[in-house]
Amino acid sequence: MKKHIISALVENKSGVLAHMVGLFSARGFNIDSLAVGETEDPQFSRITMVVAGDEQILEQVRKQLQRLVNVVKVQDFSGTAAVERDLVLVRVSAAPAKRREVMELAQVFRARIVDVGHSDVMIEVVGKEDKVQALLGLLARYGIVEMARTGRIALARSSRG
Amino acid sequence: MKKHIISALVENKSGVLAHMVGLFSARGFNIDSLAVGETEDPQFSRITMVVAGDEQILEQVRKQLQRLVNVVKVQDFSGTAAVERDLVLVRVSAAPAKRREVMELAQVFRARIVDVGHSDVMIEVVGKEDKVQALLGLLARYGIVEMARTGRIALARSSRG
Repeated sequence: MKKHIISALVENKSGVLAHMVGLFSARGFNIDSLAVGETEDPQFSRITMVVAGDEQILEQVRKQLQRLVNVVKVQDFSGTAAVERDLVLVRVSAAPAKRREVMELAQVFRARIVDVGHSDVMIEVVGKEDKVQALLGLLARYGIVEMARTGRIALARSSRG
Repeated sequence: MKKHIISALVENKSGVLAHMVGLFSARGFNIDSLAVGETEDPQFSRITMVVAGDEQILEQVRKQLQRLVNVVKVQDFSGTAAVERDLVLVRVSAAPAKRREVMELAQVFRARIVDVGHSDVMIEVVGKEDKVQALLGLLARYGIVEMARTGRIALARSSRG
């Protein structure tokens, strides 16, 4: 099933998020990723969701979202020219003798080392999903100890508007 | 009120997120930021929330979370040595004559230009909250057109364990 990136500009009120998440989960949609953060205006938050599911039902949900009192605007970025990014913090096993190898991999992916322990390093990586997945795939053979990942965010490109 | 970063490792099942968000919103907690993403194990997701609220009630909610069937582990990173990061995509007004100034600011903050239009640029910036806020503050005078922000994520440091 095709993945959709749904972005909603909402009023920054308690309950809006619970309402939106409930709308999707009541229809059995699994939310692959979710990002909720501030916007340029402190009154509003932007909620970005990646969901996969039946196109028709998704269209219904999108319309329902649009009708919610506290939802200002809903966009679906699928099939549009958008910049998509997510951020991962990952701690990888790396004894001192292996550290250089891990650091080289990070460098190739323009990732940054943000913490070093006796037998591990923590890496911060940002990018499109396929780039992030590629690095994680390469790091997996060293052993991923722990990982935290934000949901994906997106903004429309103006260079191809 | 002190902000808390709550990180929960949960089973990747429809409904868990709705349940968690509901638990906070039923008690009137405003969720400042929320990040839901995959982990090293496809069976589990990690939910990171930044919430501010009464300490005692928060402690109750944390205990309730811990008891949820699909929640594996709950951590509160406040007061611990943790790496905290969030990611912002921000489109800034920048006519060609102003572009260099904006690009210089981005460079100082190790931010990246990810799209350029006729009269705007899009910047990707990652960091601790104060760094990100500082750059956004400087960009505001050029005019922030649009912005998307992930929730904050965090992992404990092992360098000061």
